[in-house]
Amino acid sequence: MNAEIITIGDELMRGEIVDSNKARIAERLLLHDLDTRHQVSVLDDPADMRDAFVRAAERSDFVLVSGGLGPTRDDLTTEVLAETFGRKLELDPPSLEAIEAFFARVGREMVDANKKQAYFPEDADVLENPIGTAPGFSIREGRATFFAMPGVPRELDRMMDDQVLPRIASRLAEEEEGGAARRVVRAQLLATFGLGESTLEEELRDLMRDGEVELGFRTSFPDNFLRPVARAATAGEADAKIEKAVAAIRERLGPVVYGAGETDAKDTMESVVGRLLTEAGKTVSTAESCTGGLIAERFTDVPGSSAYFLGGVVSYSNEAKAAMLGVPEDVLEAHGAVSEPVVRAMAEGTRERFGSDFGIATSGISGPGGGTADKPVGLVWIALSSEAGTHADSFVFQVDRSRHRRLTAQVGLDWIRRSLIGAELVGPSLLRRSGGGSAPGGSK
Amino acid sequence: MNAEIITIGDELMRGEIVDSNKARIAERLLLHDLDTRHQVSVLDDPADMRDAFVRAAERSDFVLVSGGLGPTRDDLTTEVLAETFGRKLELDPPSLEAIEAFFARVGREMVDANKKQAYFPEDADVLENPIGTAPGFSIREGRATFFAMPGVPRELDRMMDDQVLPRIASRLAEEEEGGAARRVVRAQLLATFGLGESTLEEELRDLMRDGEVELGFRTSFPDNFLRPVARAATAGEADAKIEKAVAAIRERLGPVVYGAGETDAKDTMESVVGRLLTEAGKTVSTAESCTGGLIAERFTDVPGSSAYFLGGVVSYSNEAKAAMLGVPEDVLEAHGAVSEPVVRAMAEGTRERFGSDFGIATSGISGPGGGTADKPVGLVWIALSSEAGTHADSFVFQVDRSRHRRLTAQVGLDWIRRSLIGAELVGPSLLRRSGGGSAPGGSK
Repeated sequence: MNAEIITIGDELMRGEIVDSNKARIAERLLLHDLDTRHQVSVLDDPADMRDAFVRAAERSDFVLVSGGLGPTRDDLTTEVLAETFGRKLELDPPSLEAIEAFFARVGREMVDANKKQAYFPEDADVLENPIGTAPGFSIREGRATFFAMPGVPRELDRMMDDQVLPRIASRLAEEEEGGAARRVVRAQLLATFGLGESTLEEELRDLMRDGEVELGFRTSFPDNFLRPVARAATAGEADAKIEKAVAAIRERLGPVVYGAGETDAKDTMESVVGRLLTEAGKTVSTAESCTGGLIAERFTDVPGSSAYFLGGVVSYSNEAKAAMLGVPEDVLEAHGAVSEPVVRAMAEGTRERFGSDFGIATSGISGPGGGTADKPVGLVWIALSSEAGTHADSFVFQVDRSRHRRLTAQVGLDWIRRSLIGAELVGPSLLRRSGGGSAPGGSK
Repeated sequence: MNAEIITIGDELMRGEIVDSNKARIAERLLLHDLDTRHQVSVLDDPADMRDAFVRAAERSDFVLVSGGLGPTRDDLTTEVLAETFGRKLELDPPSLEAIEAFFARVGREMVDANKKQAYFPEDADVLENPIGTAPGFSIREGRATFFAMPGVPRELDRMMDDQVLPRIASRLAEEEEGGAARRVVRAQLLATFGLGESTLEEELRDLMRDGEVELGFRTSFPDNFLRPVARAATAGEADAKIEKAVAAIRERLGPVVYGAGETDAKDTMESVVGRLLTEAGKTVSTAESCTGGLIAERFTDVPGSSAYFLGGVVSYSNEAKAAMLGVPEDVLEAHGAVSEPVVRAMAEGTRERFGSDFGIATSGISGPGGGTADKPVGLVWIALSSEAGTHADSFVFQVDRSRHRRLTAQVGLDWIRRSLIGAELVGPSLLRRSGGGSAPGGSK
């Protein structure tokens, strides 16, 4: 059995928004062992929509439609689906009540156009939308079950999880009883930092040779994600397979694997560092020049981070490095802001002034301008100060300004993590990909 | 004439990555007055790819294909396109040399698989890729011109701009000479902050009534973008139409419009504030609690920001607010960290310590925890200190943690902008949408 995703909207076809709905739908379907075989986007145009619906009904078992359920006259999904399959539109009184209640709750006026959202094709199964005004619905046409859902990502996610996936699971279970035995799928996402994709692939090639587990790769700069997927006849078998594969990968890669998780419970570098700091009862503060607050921002993005993140200084000017962090002015003058003595003094200064266990500091030239022969664009010094002393190292990351900042911040966070688990403080010296398209960075 | 976009890759169909290529291709095509009518994604599967290519050749004039040009055995675009349209594969010696030169330049070893990337369907027009290993190519099949491009976004963008768009323009010009007169398109993106989408729509409805200009809306939290698109027989006419529309929108909305631009030259709130600060010869520093460094990070994301951004303090703990910003401890004790006196003292403290013209401060409860009856989750105090005095206000933004931080940071940046252009310092009190799906925030 296979799935098809249809997203609808002129704004998608004009490129005004990036369509992330398809990825989020497909990711969820895969965990039900449903492969997405087709993805299609069309204009808010009845003829194109009809064509897409007819083809999907012929070739797919599940058709996930997103968009076009709003109150405006451009929102045509309900009407066109009904018309395509020769169904009348019928008012669903409970939906009308729910829409009225929604508007009363948020204190907004309900306009006539919103009433349209309570009409559905006859024999439709209505899908509640507790966080928006547009209910969804499901209809069965031949082999295909259509699910029409809102395009607003939050509402779509909620409807997928609460309404659509249980219905899909139930139809899959029926089919299974009918003879078509289904396989159980287990997947696990592993987050890595420090090795390039082709190096990872090479390192892990022999582990995957038996074909029991399929290994997916994904790059989201500056990280690489591994996604082993195991299929088996029973849940127990699939669990065992995936556990074995994850253990083998972790053993092979050591501290390069920094996190795990799926979709909503995904580890991030900052959440992992936060957890380790909490477990160790340690605190941290930052002194950022070239990363300009990015490390602090990432720490504080995690709920509860006030337990271990005390604060930081963004010392963009030399005066700020001296006044706010106590970097001696003669050191600044003798070595320049992007230098080992200055970044060490920054890390030690923030640690002392905030009274934290760790102090992390960055100073570099993110570009595009500001480089010299001695100190080229891309050069960065990073220092980590703790009771064990202060470690500093320099890199030349030949990437654009935004990636330079993100890569530098990631190394800084990774050093705290590595320090807490007793691993070596290395940089992404191996981040260069061999044989691939682009080199995310190289060490000096 | 119309365009179709086909993206290829199992990773897309598994939802492992969000496919932003389609949006970037479509956006570029629209500026050549080419409407994208179909978007399709398929697996790395020859049968599905063939089916997509055949249908595209029947219904579309330009077919933009992205992905599947890499060196691995999963990369099948070249082979399948050749086979679908009955063409042999031929080695292109200049491409082989270019690939060899690329590997020599980046100091990586070239593997045999990379040689595959120098083969193209016969009669193909090769498209150079100066920043990667995979050249693209173009073939003409009946009414359709196919462009096969890499999936790596950077390489795709470069190839679109340098190779593909000029070829499309030239074919469009040929068709025009052949009789099918083309219309010139002009579009302009306007960035707004402070009003909800439906309010904007209502405010501008009468301006667009004559149908001369089509008005697109896009929300990218916490901003709303307007995109008037004008079509005319000549460039002069189209320019005049779009200028008139933009002037009318700006007059109607006043300071709610904060920026303009298209694709790569897009204004951001931080770049606009930076430009205004530079013009005024003024400097700024930050004192962030709940935004945790986000405002500093956004300032320093702009190249050259060291000219006006002096630095900032992320004062997450009360101790840091006292020690690093000089907030009196009795004030902290009497009023709590999230209070008007504290946020005023933070803004004044950072301005004084960094010696800047402006000091912006935030203190709030971003959630999910930490609220009380008096100070609910979502409450935030924002203060802007300058020689004109200190302005402070509070809001309750009922959005999740991440949006709370982004919305607060945007108000802070917007206040600096409004202060520099002499506009009123208002918050997004009108951000609530009426009749729409979700309410991004509301004022206290």
